[in-house]
Amino acid sequence: MAEILASKPVVQAMGDDIRPRVERLKELGITPTLAIVRVGNRPDDLSYERTAIKRAESLGIATRVFELDEFVTEYELESQLHAINVDPSIHGCLLFRPLPTFMDEKKICDELAIEKDVDGISTAALGAVFTDSSEGFAPCTAEACIKMLDHYGIEIEGKHAVVVGRSLVIGKPVAMLLLKRNASVTICHSRTKDLHRMMRAADIVICATGRPHAYGPVHFSPGQTVLDVGINFDMNGNLCGDVDFDAVEPIVASITPVPGGIGSVTTSTTMEHTLRAAERVARQSGALQ
Amino acid sequence: MAEILASKPVVQAMGDDIRPRVERLKELGITPTLAIVRVGNRPDDLSYERTAIKRAESLGIATRVFELDEFVTEYELESQLHAINVDPSIHGCLLFRPLPTFMDEKKICDELAIEKDVDGISTAALGAVFTDSSEGFAPCTAEACIKMLDHYGIEIEGKHAVVVGRSLVIGKPVAMLLLKRNASVTICHSRTKDLHRMMRAADIVICATGRPHAYGPVHFSPGQTVLDVGINFDMNGNLCGDVDFDAVEPIVASITPVPGGIGSVTTSTTMEHTLRAAERVARQSGALQ
Repeated sequence: MAEILASKPVVQAMGDDIRPRVERLKELGITPTLAIVRVGNRPDDLSYERTAIKRAESLGIATRVFELDEFVTEYELESQLHAINVDPSIHGCLLFRPLPTFMDEKKICDELAIEKDVDGISTAALGAVFTDSSEGFAPCTAEACIKMLDHYGIEIEGKHAVVVGRSLVIGKPVAMLLLKRNASVTICHSRTKDLHRMMRAADIVICATGRPHAYGPVHFSPGQTVLDVGINFDMNGNLCGDVDFDAVEPIVASITPVPGGIGSVTTSTTMEHTLRAAERVARQSGALQ
Repeated sequence: MAEILASKPVVQAMGDDIRPRVERLKELGITPTLAIVRVGNRPDDLSYERTAIKRAESLGIATRVFELDEFVTEYELESQLHAINVDPSIHGCLLFRPLPTFMDEKKICDELAIEKDVDGISTAALGAVFTDSSEGFAPCTAEACIKMLDHYGIEIEGKHAVVVGRSLVIGKPVAMLLLKRNASVTICHSRTKDLHRMMRAADIVICATGRPHAYGPVHFSPGQTVLDVGINFDMNGNLCGDVDFDAVEPIVASITPVPGGIGSVTTSTTMEHTLRAAERVARQSGALQ
């Protein structure tokens, strides 16, 4: 029986850390505020928006939703982001992706100021992750993996981590964060040969390919910690991860469930980044020591 | 007996590609020009400068050396880089490092315009490597590794590469370049446990830790390709790599020597980047199709 790495206690501990810091800023007249920029009305965007607003409210963080028409032009979207960049009452910005296919997503993400890019989507923020600079914020999902490991006291230093998936949202940045914590890190992907052998050799496995139930008993070995970053739907329409949880859980030492795993920690991480962005502004103005 | 992956034929082939392209630009009135910025008179900087100038000359590329006093201020150095950024007759810039310890090296490197940063030292260029954008140039040593593998027809796709060392000059960027070419990539370092086992499991091993003769027979296995990026001096004052070449060569399938390996390909890569920077300018002006 594996230890279940549930999000609930992590989210609770993060909340206990965040709430008094938010209160302190409010006493100084600053309400940490997250802008949510949504293009169109995709159901999963709306669903995540509700979750984010609820989490923000529970922590005392304000949210402002900017809803843009699904046929908005690049220029209008960039203008919206620019308006957010220069609005001193907004500290962080979450832009839902993917953007409509007619848009140059990279160009638009790069419009966002690094100090408000709380989900690390701009090249500047990702460059900071790669060069190990403290200037930007790492993508929240990547950082949520580290928070999960830390909360459950799972050592990273000197361990061998295998990351399956090489996206800029999770695979590559989490590899850099693990490296920073002195893990040895292997990045695997769809072209990896003998993937199951590579995965079985790891101490920590992070699955982030978005393929429902793609990894089963053959991919894991006893003693491992498994972080399942996938958020997919199975054939019955139920939420599931990249890992076949029921089959893998009896083998490994610890594993995150889906739902109730990395996803919820990610939302809290967005809030913590928004708070940090607000604290930075308060320190720069001299309001906060 | 391993195949010796010597630089000479690679440098020759690169020269055969570069020279006619330089000629074509010269016919359009554009001489590809590399600025070399050196602070102080460190013997290894001077030695590399001579090598670079000689290589540039042999390819028809012009060089301009900017020598600054070892006690130059950050402001003066930044001003020099800015002057290079805005000088249309200069296409690429090589800044020797390490800079004096009293300087903020990252801040200074970030002064260099991405389009002239032919050795990928700025956060912008490194961010481009990480996000797989074509905007910047990768660090030359990292790209030289790929050029070496390609020249000798060593397949990268689907192979497992182990990179030892996680610097921004070579370890991390070469890992990204290998990943782009669909290798599975492991990054190891000084805190890696069982390093010899990790290394032995690879198809391609890249040693980039700057520790003379640190890797011997225990670290390698038959069939492997070994790229030795180290440029060190042994106890007798002779140039040597990170790998104990004499002991390892009989075991592996192919290996780069030091000297005569990655180092010389790196210099040619700097020249090729300078040419590409000049070609880009010529295309933007409409002079080149």
